[in-house]
Amino acid sequence: MLYEISEKIMRLESEGKKIIKFNLGDPDQPTPNEIIEAAFEAMKQGKTKYSSSAGEKKLREELARAHKVSAENVVVTTGSKWAIFSVMYLLLKSGDNVVIPTPYWTAYELTAKSLGVEPRFLRTEVGSNWKIDIEKLKGLIDRRTRLLILNNPNNPTSKVIDEKVLAEIVQIANDEGITILSDEVYSDISFVEVKNILDFDGSHILVKSFSKTFAMTGWRVGYVIAEKELAEKMVKLNQITLTNVPVFVQQAALKALELKEEIANKIRDEYRRRADLACSILSKTKMKFSRPDAPFYVFPGYDGLNSESFALNLLDKGVAIAPGTAFGDHREHFRIALTLSEEEIELGLKKICEALK
Amino acid sequence: MLYEISEKIMRLESEGKKIIKFNLGDPDQPTPNEIIEAAFEAMKQGKTKYSSSAGEKKLREELARAHKVSAENVVVTTGSKWAIFSVMYLLLKSGDNVVIPTPYWTAYELTAKSLGVEPRFLRTEVGSNWKIDIEKLKGLIDRRTRLLILNNPNNPTSKVIDEKVLAEIVQIANDEGITILSDEVYSDISFVEVKNILDFDGSHILVKSFSKTFAMTGWRVGYVIAEKELAEKMVKLNQITLTNVPVFVQQAALKALELKEEIANKIRDEYRRRADLACSILSKTKMKFSRPDAPFYVFPGYDGLNSESFALNLLDKGVAIAPGTAFGDHREHFRIALTLSEEEIELGLKKICEALK
Repeated sequence: MLYEISEKIMRLESEGKKIIKFNLGDPDQPTPNEIIEAAFEAMKQGKTKYSSSAGEKKLREELARAHKVSAENVVVTTGSKWAIFSVMYLLLKSGDNVVIPTPYWTAYELTAKSLGVEPRFLRTEVGSNWKIDIEKLKGLIDRRTRLLILNNPNNPTSKVIDEKVLAEIVQIANDEGITILSDEVYSDISFVEVKNILDFDGSHILVKSFSKTFAMTGWRVGYVIAEKELAEKMVKLNQITLTNVPVFVQQAALKALELKEEIANKIRDEYRRRADLACSILSKTKMKFSRPDAPFYVFPGYDGLNSESFALNLLDKGVAIAPGTAFGDHREHFRIALTLSEEEIELGLKKICEALK
Repeated sequence: MLYEISEKIMRLESEGKKIIKFNLGDPDQPTPNEIIEAAFEAMKQGKTKYSSSAGEKKLREELARAHKVSAENVVVTTGSKWAIFSVMYLLLKSGDNVVIPTPYWTAYELTAKSLGVEPRFLRTEVGSNWKIDIEKLKGLIDRRTRLLILNNPNNPTSKVIDEKVLAEIVQIANDEGITILSDEVYSDISFVEVKNILDFDGSHILVKSFSKTFAMTGWRVGYVIAEKELAEKMVKLNQITLTNVPVFVQQAALKALELKEEIANKIRDEYRRRADLACSILSKTKMKFSRPDAPFYVFPGYDGLNSESFALNLLDKGVAIAPGTAFGDHREHFRIALTLSEEEIELGLKKICEALK
C-alpha cells in the first residue's frame, strides 16, 4: 500500500502537481555542515579502506562511555535496521515467535516473516494513550517466545512507554527468559524523558541510530549495545555481509556526538513547535489522537475511516499520508510525519480536515 | 587463524615493529580525488536522505548500459559481500548445498554455514593451473544442489577461468537447473580478458564491486545483475536491512564509472608490474605457483609446508601472509597480496625465501 502511494506521488509530481508529503519519516533539515566536513576530511586522509567489522575503536569507546558499558558491548551498524535484522537473524529460529506491540514500525514484521518467525501482535489503543496492557502481553507469551520488540518512543504514535509500565514489562521478560530488543532511535530528541532499557536488570538489547538525532538518515549509521557474546556474533555476521560502516561515515558520526547537545536541542525544539501546531489544529476536529511525546509523528484516527482509500483519494487533493494499515491492524488511523515546514503542516492538515467532512 | 595473525600483527606493531603486510586484499592506492570530491559535492547538495533500495536510477541505468541489460536487472548493494549474502539468503534453504571451487574466498563458506547450507568443495590444484575439473564438478551435484559459486578471476589464485571450461560449466549448470553466482570483482582490472557470465545462456547472476577497480574498498558499494524476479526480492531484502547505499556514495560511484578507463588502466598496469616482479623472484625458488591473470594475489606453495605455523613464525621476521587453510584445504600454500610497493614486495619475498630454507 505504501508502495502504491509512493508510485502515485511520483506520477502526480511528474505531472507537475505539488504534494505535501506527510508520509516520510525523513527530517527536512539537512545534515549539519560540520558533520559533512568531518566526513570529507576523513576521506581526504585516506579513511576509505576496509576496517573493523565492530566499528572504529574511538567511536565505540565514546558510545560505551555515554551508555556506561564496555566498548566490547558496542557494535556500529549500517543503520538501526541492520542492527534489528542482525539481532533477529542471530537470536531467532524458524518456529520461534516474537511479540510486537502495535501499531509498529513495518520492518519488524517483515523481518520476522523473512526469517520464518511468527510475529505476535500486542494491540494498543488510542483510548488508553497507546499503553501496553500487561495482562495481554502475558497472554501472548509461550515457550517459543524468544524476543519482545519495544519501540520507545514509538513510530507511528510518538508515545514514550511509562517508566512503571516498562519496569513491569522487563520483569515479565526476565521471569520468562525473553530478550527485549529496545529500538530507541527517537529517544535523544524526545520531548519527555525516556527510560533506557539498559537501566533495567536483564540481558536486553538497545538499538540506536544517528539518523533522527542528527538528520543523518541517508548515511546509514547506527549501533547496538548488547551482551558481549551477542555483540561478537554480530561482528562475525558483519564480517560476512557488510565488512564495515565506511570509516569516513563513522568519523562523521564521531563529530555528530561532539555536537550532540546543540544539534539535538535544535531538532527537538523545532519538532515540539510543529507537534504543538498539529495538536492545536487536530484538537478542534473529531479526530482521536494522542499528543506526541517525541518527534516525528502524529497518528490520528477517525471513527469508521478506511485510511487506505482515504490516503489514495487525499493524494488527488495534494496531500500524502501513510494509512494505519501500514503499522498493523489500525485501519481507522493514519500517520502524519511532521517533517515539513509549519506552513505546509497547517495547509496539509486543513486539507485533511476538509476531506474528512 | 587470520584473526590470530591480525592480533599478532597489532601486538607487534604496538611494540614498534615494522611488518610487511602481504595479508590484506586492500589496494595501497588512495581513492582518486575526483571520486572523493564527487561524494563531497553530493553531501553538500543534500544527498544525505533515505533513497531507493534498488539504487539510484542514474547509476542503475549506467550499469545496465555497460552490461547490456535493463535497469530492472541491476541492484546496487552495500559491497559485493552483501550481494553474495543476499543471493544466498534468498535462493538457499537449510539442507540445500552449494558447490564452491577451492581455493575460495572465505566468505562463501562462512555464509553457507551461517544459512545452514552445505558447502561442497570442488578442489583445484596448482599442477593444473587451478583448472576446474568438469568430471569432479558433475560428481558433486545432486538434487539439493542449488548454486555454484564462481570467482572469476579467483581470490586467492588470481586465475581467470578459461572460456572453453567456463562454457562447459555453464552447460552443466543449465542442464541440472543450477544457478551460477559469478563473483567477478577483479575482472575490470584483469591482465587477460574475462568472459562474463552474462555472455552465456541461462539465468545466472553477476556480482561486481567498485572496491578493487577504483580503490574504493571502504566505501562499500557494489552491484548485482540478476533476473528481474530475483532483483526485486533483493530490493525487498534491502528495504528491511539496509534501506539504501548512501546516495553520496552512489554519486561517487557514478563519477568512478566516468573515469573508469583511466583509473582501471593505471591500477592494472601497476599490479602487472608487481606481479611480474613477484613471479620473477618466485621462479628462482622451489615454490610452486601459477602466474596471476589478474590483481592482487599470488598463491605459492611449497612441498610439505604447514602454512599456518609458517605464517605465525614469519610474523616474527616482519612479514605477514595469509595461510592457505584460510581458503580451503590448501595447507601447503599461502596467499601474498601485492598491495605493497615494489621495494616492500622484493624485501618481503626475500624474507619468505630465507624462512623457507
